[in-house]
Amino acid sequence: MKEEKILLGHGSGGLLTSKLIREVVLKYFDSKILERLEDAAELPRAKQKIAFTTDAYVVNPIFFPGGDIGKLAICGTINDLAVKGAIPKFLSFALIIEEGFEFADLEKILKSAANAARIAGVTVVCGDTKVVEKGKTDRLFITTSGVGVIKQNLRREKIRAGDRVIISGTIGDHGIAIMNKRLNLGLQFNVKSDVAALNGLVMKILSAGPAIHFMRDPTRGGVVSVLNETVEGTQYGIVIDETRLPIKKQVRGASEILGLDPLYIANEGKIVVFADKNKAERILTIMHAHPLGKHAAIIGKVVKKPTGVWLKTSIGGTHPLIQMEAEGLPRIC
Amino acid sequence: MKEEKILLGHGSGGLLTSKLIREVVLKYFDSKILERLEDAAELPRAKQKIAFTTDAYVVNPIFFPGGDIGKLAICGTINDLAVKGAIPKFLSFALIIEEGFEFADLEKILKSAANAARIAGVTVVCGDTKVVEKGKTDRLFITTSGVGVIKQNLRREKIRAGDRVIISGTIGDHGIAIMNKRLNLGLQFNVKSDVAALNGLVMKILSAGPAIHFMRDPTRGGVVSVLNETVEGTQYGIVIDETRLPIKKQVRGASEILGLDPLYIANEGKIVVFADKNKAERILTIMHAHPLGKHAAIIGKVVKKPTGVWLKTSIGGTHPLIQMEAEGLPRIC
Repeated sequence: MKEEKILLGHGSGGLLTSKLIREVVLKYFDSKILERLEDAAELPRAKQKIAFTTDAYVVNPIFFPGGDIGKLAICGTINDLAVKGAIPKFLSFALIIEEGFEFADLEKILKSAANAARIAGVTVVCGDTKVVEKGKTDRLFITTSGVGVIKQNLRREKIRAGDRVIISGTIGDHGIAIMNKRLNLGLQFNVKSDVAALNGLVMKILSAGPAIHFMRDPTRGGVVSVLNETVEGTQYGIVIDETRLPIKKQVRGASEILGLDPLYIANEGKIVVFADKNKAERILTIMHAHPLGKHAAIIGKVVKKPTGVWLKTSIGGTHPLIQMEAEGLPRIC
Repeated sequence: MKEEKILLGHGSGGLLTSKLIREVVLKYFDSKILERLEDAAELPRAKQKIAFTTDAYVVNPIFFPGGDIGKLAICGTINDLAVKGAIPKFLSFALIIEEGFEFADLEKILKSAANAARIAGVTVVCGDTKVVEKGKTDRLFITTSGVGVIKQNLRREKIRAGDRVIISGTIGDHGIAIMNKRLNLGLQFNVKSDVAALNGLVMKILSAGPAIHFMRDPTRGGVVSVLNETVEGTQYGIVIDETRLPIKKQVRGASEILGLDPLYIANEGKIVVFADKNKAERILTIMHAHPLGKHAAIIGKVVKKPTGVWLKTSIGGTHPLIQMEAEGLPRIC
């Protein structure tokens, strides 16, 4: 008989754990390496340098318009490798599940995660499953780590005055989708999370070669956090042009109602690119040709003065875009 | 002013997160790679094949005799790499923290984790910190992943009939220490968890070369789970000799009181080695010379018949050691 809900025993390392892994997890993550179920996965030799990253995902709700925690955990880690100029290759997938969690929901999440990995061309090669007592965690958390090979080493130090700042598409979609669902706002905006694996887009962008200086994905803390972290401690500043920011009408509307600034809202399928000013238009053309870069825009530039991050508004003013103490809403990813 | 407790904002990706990482996490994890705080860490080229592993740690209580969740998360992942015949090199460290968690406790855990990593010669190169609302998780969970270079590829398929089964020391210490603390048994046994990084011991063992066929660390599910998983689906069985099992008197006593069998209890600083019968004594000598292998013992052998795992008891009987549906107690690691 198959259980309908996760039991504590599914995390105990006995037969129930073994059944869960063999009958459910391996059904979705179809990998010759993973199915060996060894203590550590054996990866092939790599000629290049390795990139290594990790992220814990605690998003609430776990299902949201445009995705779920499974897809998010796969795409988020892929993106952290991609923006480092690496080709994502192998992922780990560690689950912490609340006792009583529905198998049907677990299967939905695994299916969605496996599907995202397959589309992005990465393989889940190792994992872990722990179960904690009912009420001792909130449904399900996933921590993924990723290993990739570095194609082009992107570092903050490569940024120069004059560099153009390019965003790969509309801002704030993920955060607004989550807030609308979580707070039960019932906004009739139909905004979906932008969660997506960006490694395909990044590889296209890297074809522009050394003109690409640096990339980041503006997740928690939004575009403003990424821009501040990028120039923090350097001799440079960034000026963003408000009129050039691609923001969906619905996101703009929802942000106004919620009193939020889309520049501070999390994205899960966007990148900020710092590129040589002479190649910026060409890079923009490359991005526009990719489905995930259709709405890419040059939104600003790196300057020598003033340092810090600034917004040139549509009516001609200039305001500092300082990092906030804390984003408005927790558990956005 | 420094906060005394973790706030939701510490996980939001804004300034509070940045402060937490820079002022607390980096104080303990002293690494040139980590302190770059990039989306992905850049690792050096490796000539060998790579081993990659992950584990989520949800142990309760987070502080226990002999260690804490931080040390456990570091050592556990090191050990998963080591038993694969890999030299552990780089770790990731992802925290999920409950709002209101004491900074003092967080610092204790980070210090202990960093210390364990330093002693074992591995570097924490990337991490993540998420915070969830009070009551939505149980204090603190850690997921670590690890990357190592494979020195000698150990695989289940190398096991042959006649191989000796060697355990590196006493059985059941970790599980009994956790249970005693958690259940407030107040047993005056003074049993400490055996949590330790075994990569040093494993490297010594690997000096015996191809005579080493396979290794596993008997954590969740204990020695019995590891033995069953090792011969499952193969043509071999394993016979364990009860009289040779190294078990501390206190662990034996506590197990009797609790109605548990030490062979099913979790260890966090032990390995089971499958080795050529002609070299087993030499390997045992190597193990005895290492502080973590002092009580190593040859406890059984691989046989052609019967398949499965068997215990030859002190009075001459033979009983099957089948895997249990689920271990007695959840959240042992």
